[in-house]
Amino acid sequence: MIDFWFSIGSTYTYLTMMRLAEVEARENISLNLRPFNVRTIMVEQNNIPFRDKPVKTEYMWRDIERRAAGRGVPALVPAPYPLPEMEMANQIAVLGLREGWAKQYIVETYRRWFQNGEPPGEEANLAHSLKGIGEPGEISARAATDEVAAALVAETETCRDLGVFGSPSFIVGSEVFWGDDRLEDAISWARNGQLD
Amino acid sequence: MIDFWFSIGSTYTYLTMMRLAEVEARENISLNLRPFNVRTIMVEQNNIPFRDKPVKTEYMWRDIERRAAGRGVPALVPAPYPLPEMEMANQIAVLGLREGWAKQYIVETYRRWFQNGEPPGEEANLAHSLKGIGEPGEISARAATDEVAAALVAETETCRDLGVFGSPSFIVGSEVFWGDDRLEDAISWARNGQLD
Repeated sequence: MIDFWFSIGSTYTYLTMMRLAEVEARENISLNLRPFNVRTIMVEQNNIPFRDKPVKTEYMWRDIERRAAGRGVPALVPAPYPLPEMEMANQIAVLGLREGWAKQYIVETYRRWFQNGEPPGEEANLAHSLKGIGEPGEISARAATDEVAAALVAETETCRDLGVFGSPSFIVGSEVFWGDDRLEDAISWARNGQLD
Repeated sequence: MIDFWFSIGSTYTYLTMMRLAEVEARENISLNLRPFNVRTIMVEQNNIPFRDKPVKTEYMWRDIERRAAGRGVPALVPAPYPLPEMEMANQIAVLGLREGWAKQYIVETYRRWFQNGEPPGEEANLAHSLKGIGEPGEISARAATDEVAAALVAETETCRDLGVFGSPSFIVGSEVFWGDDRLEDAISWARNGQLD
């Protein structure tokens, strides 16, 4: 079992979302979606990867662009960043998990973010990423409750206690694998208890 | 042509050094060794990946240990870190490039660091990593000159201007690839101008 901890708002997580269905089908696995708030943990741990680091930030966008292109996936970089409505975007994912439409929403909200420049959690993005699911205003209202917000905070505390410090992270047993480029390691570990 | 920018003192660079000969033989390429001082650039850019980040640091050691094991390479982690004699270790590499023994020294100094716990640039490590090359004290003295120190500083400025912010970095034309896990991307780019 692989827990896929992610925050909508993490840039590198785009690479994972865009190959999620393909990887799951090819490997005959299902990743367990676990949204959390990476910003909380990064602030706590003084782990600020990009905000005050222009050279590393520029590299990050180019790295994502090149890797996406290598997989045949477009990426308009830089995408809007950071996301003002990051908490809302992830609280909607929490709601979607309860109601069975999380994966459709998450993948589409990422696609609109990186292919159309629409920030997740905001109106234009939600109009598309919730299409066929329900009325965006109504879903946002249900995702904005204290109870859903508390659920996201609880998940954030859970993964922080498991050693997560960034998104995406894949957890197999007690092993944490951080980064889209460690997804293969996580799958290998889940199969064989070691890296191939 | 791939420039392989590295600092002896970078932990993840161990993974690259331990597979350098195998990758060069398999791919029929030769990486152009370019030692620099990553600490200078990281301090300049306020990019402190581990010093005040215990969770990320613990992950880094485990990630290296797992990946090394997956390649059949031992890694006694945590290795001594950070290195008090980092500049000396890299200045010896600069000297070695001029005199033709750099690769032997660099690979062996990393091996002793991660397999025997001997910090690069210090006596025990140098006694082994310079074996067959020359007398460690004499080589250290020749590597400790202002001229060699200035050469390392100049290389550091060169790669900083090219966009390098961490070690290892691979540069192909104007493209920077950061991390042992981007070596395949760099090779692909050198071959095809894109990622496979």
